[in-house]
Amino acid sequence: MFSVVMAGGSGTRFWPLSRREVPKQLLDITGEGPMVARTCERIAPLCRDEELILVLGQSHLGAVRQLLAGRPVHLLGEPVGRNTAPAIGLGALAAAHLGCRGAVAFLPADHYIADPKAFLDALRVAANVAEAGGIVTLGIVPVRPETGYGYIRREAEPLEMEGEAAYRVLEFVEKPDLERAAEYLASGSYYWNAGIFVAKTDTILTQIRIHLPHLHDALMRLAASLGTPGFETALKEIYDGLESVPFDYGIMEKTREPVYVLPCECGWSDVGSWESLYELKRGEHDGEGNLISGDILSVDCRRSFVSAEEGRLVACLGLDNCLVVDTQDILLVADLRRSQEIRKIVDRLAADRRQKYL
Amino acid sequence: MFSVVMAGGSGTRFWPLSRREVPKQLLDITGEGPMVARTCERIAPLCRDEELILVLGQSHLGAVRQLLAGRPVHLLGEPVGRNTAPAIGLGALAAAHLGCRGAVAFLPADHYIADPKAFLDALRVAANVAEAGGIVTLGIVPVRPETGYGYIRREAEPLEMEGEAAYRVLEFVEKPDLERAAEYLASGSYYWNAGIFVAKTDTILTQIRIHLPHLHDALMRLAASLGTPGFETALKEIYDGLESVPFDYGIMEKTREPVYVLPCECGWSDVGSWESLYELKRGEHDGEGNLISGDILSVDCRRSFVSAEEGRLVACLGLDNCLVVDTQDILLVADLRRSQEIRKIVDRLAADRRQKYL
Repeated sequence: MFSVVMAGGSGTRFWPLSRREVPKQLLDITGEGPMVARTCERIAPLCRDEELILVLGQSHLGAVRQLLAGRPVHLLGEPVGRNTAPAIGLGALAAAHLGCRGAVAFLPADHYIADPKAFLDALRVAANVAEAGGIVTLGIVPVRPETGYGYIRREAEPLEMEGEAAYRVLEFVEKPDLERAAEYLASGSYYWNAGIFVAKTDTILTQIRIHLPHLHDALMRLAASLGTPGFETALKEIYDGLESVPFDYGIMEKTREPVYVLPCECGWSDVGSWESLYELKRGEHDGEGNLISGDILSVDCRRSFVSAEEGRLVACLGLDNCLVVDTQDILLVADLRRSQEIRKIVDRLAADRRQKYL
Repeated sequence: MFSVVMAGGSGTRFWPLSRREVPKQLLDITGEGPMVARTCERIAPLCRDEELILVLGQSHLGAVRQLLAGRPVHLLGEPVGRNTAPAIGLGALAAAHLGCRGAVAFLPADHYIADPKAFLDALRVAANVAEAGGIVTLGIVPVRPETGYGYIRREAEPLEMEGEAAYRVLEFVEKPDLERAAEYLASGSYYWNAGIFVAKTDTILTQIRIHLPHLHDALMRLAASLGTPGFETALKEIYDGLESVPFDYGIMEKTREPVYVLPCECGWSDVGSWESLYELKRGEHDGEGNLISGDILSVDCRRSFVSAEEGRLVACLGLDNCLVVDTQDILLVADLRRSQEIRKIVDRLAADRRQKYL
């Protein structure tokens, strides 16, 4: 089975640890190793290295090549980020070029999965379903009324498709408020949208042709150069003219193909913010709910996340819901509950052209 | 007029900026220069350098000598800190030895005074009162219901002593709770105790003889060596055996000499904590009440105090009542309202024998 790992994120969410040159997917955020390497290891039982395609930022090619040294995976370097629709299209095109005619799994490179076996089982079933056509998404069974994720609503009754409990999707729902999120959780008919898709290459490319014809044209122009020395130049030309479009918005919400959701309980997290990482590492919290790494002296602190690089002492007094990230050249101090807003800081630095801090 | 400047503080209150080797009185906390130098400048119109005695920690002699280079002041280095009663006793002994028979001003080295003229005027009056005997304290007219200071309660009617508005002191009061502090403020009969005293040398030494006879014996043994090469050795021997006693507790609360308070409105602050410094610099706050120095990028912060040394970027998001002090080797993040408790951190470091951070 082919897989396309999407590793093109710009990594502002873990700033200042993540930077343009070292985005989240290249970092060991969770303690299991660099996320992109972990994603490639996780999928290995389903997918030989020769069937593994990574779509990533061109400037990260060298770093990823090192992380995956000796593994004959396929790396595709995007000259600029154009969100997931072009990345998935490019991945599908490459898979088809490599001879794939069956279902392909499209996987973000920077997610955490506590139970890889449950995850792989779900992908196997999803592949079976997708072989018959349509697009299958993994639906993460919600465990709390999360307002930070999009949701997938399913039909009441499962399909009887090869005995697998897949459902038809009724709709994709934007991030809800807390009240709605609680309703979704209670209903049992909603799943978290993890952005994990399984579909055959020609299903993907056909849907792109119908709903994103400009992208399809570009991919077709690129097809001729695949595997030739002219590929990089062609890729650059084409990407310059592409729009940024998320696959969810560009295809999934519009397609008339059947869309299925396969419920999955695999301990998934998108690790989308410092707070999300803090929650993920609940097992490492101290008695007052602090998550601490480095040379930290803490007095009367609670529910705080303090991370410091070696060589400096960090003293904390009376903190509550505080995030402290101390790196060589940047110190971040924030309300932990607002760690989603770190982008505001990165945007300000970009506007001020302070490149060395991006 | 002789003055004794007490510069023996250990400087934990402004940790991590202040350290054992560079306590608060040697730092430029307020932006007017090192506090001990500023204190010596302030008193200069009243007191020639030859009449100025500084009592300070022995390990700071070199630094203070540099700060006051070229000024023929007298420096007395205490081998260990024993609080203010021994320091005042030593200062009085030295002043007497230098020929002083009149009133001496005893001044902490690390206070801020917005209106030096009002301060000097008060000292002049205090000296006049003290020439007739007794001990005169400056009573700072309170401007808010402060719970961080001790108070001085006066009699209802002023003395008619050379036409000066001095009052007899009824009692010295410990730091009050907020309710009491508000009563004190409203009553008009209470002043902040700034630890600033004026008295003749023999009044001081007599009171020490009566209430701290052990200290008096020690000072008398020391007297013979004043101005001789054996002084330092004698001082060390004597200090080793002394108890730590605050002058307030050891003398002022017990004396049967007349004690006077002279009201003073000079914009005084003991600058006793980061929060106190934050309040003092109200004029430099931004629109959201933040006090910021260094390369700080702040988003949605209020009433926070962020201070960083050069060479690092500090980004702050959503902070409220937060204190951030970023130095070369230590970062402190604290609830600004609890900056009085920084001692807890320093105590822990001392208990862990982490000398380089003290």
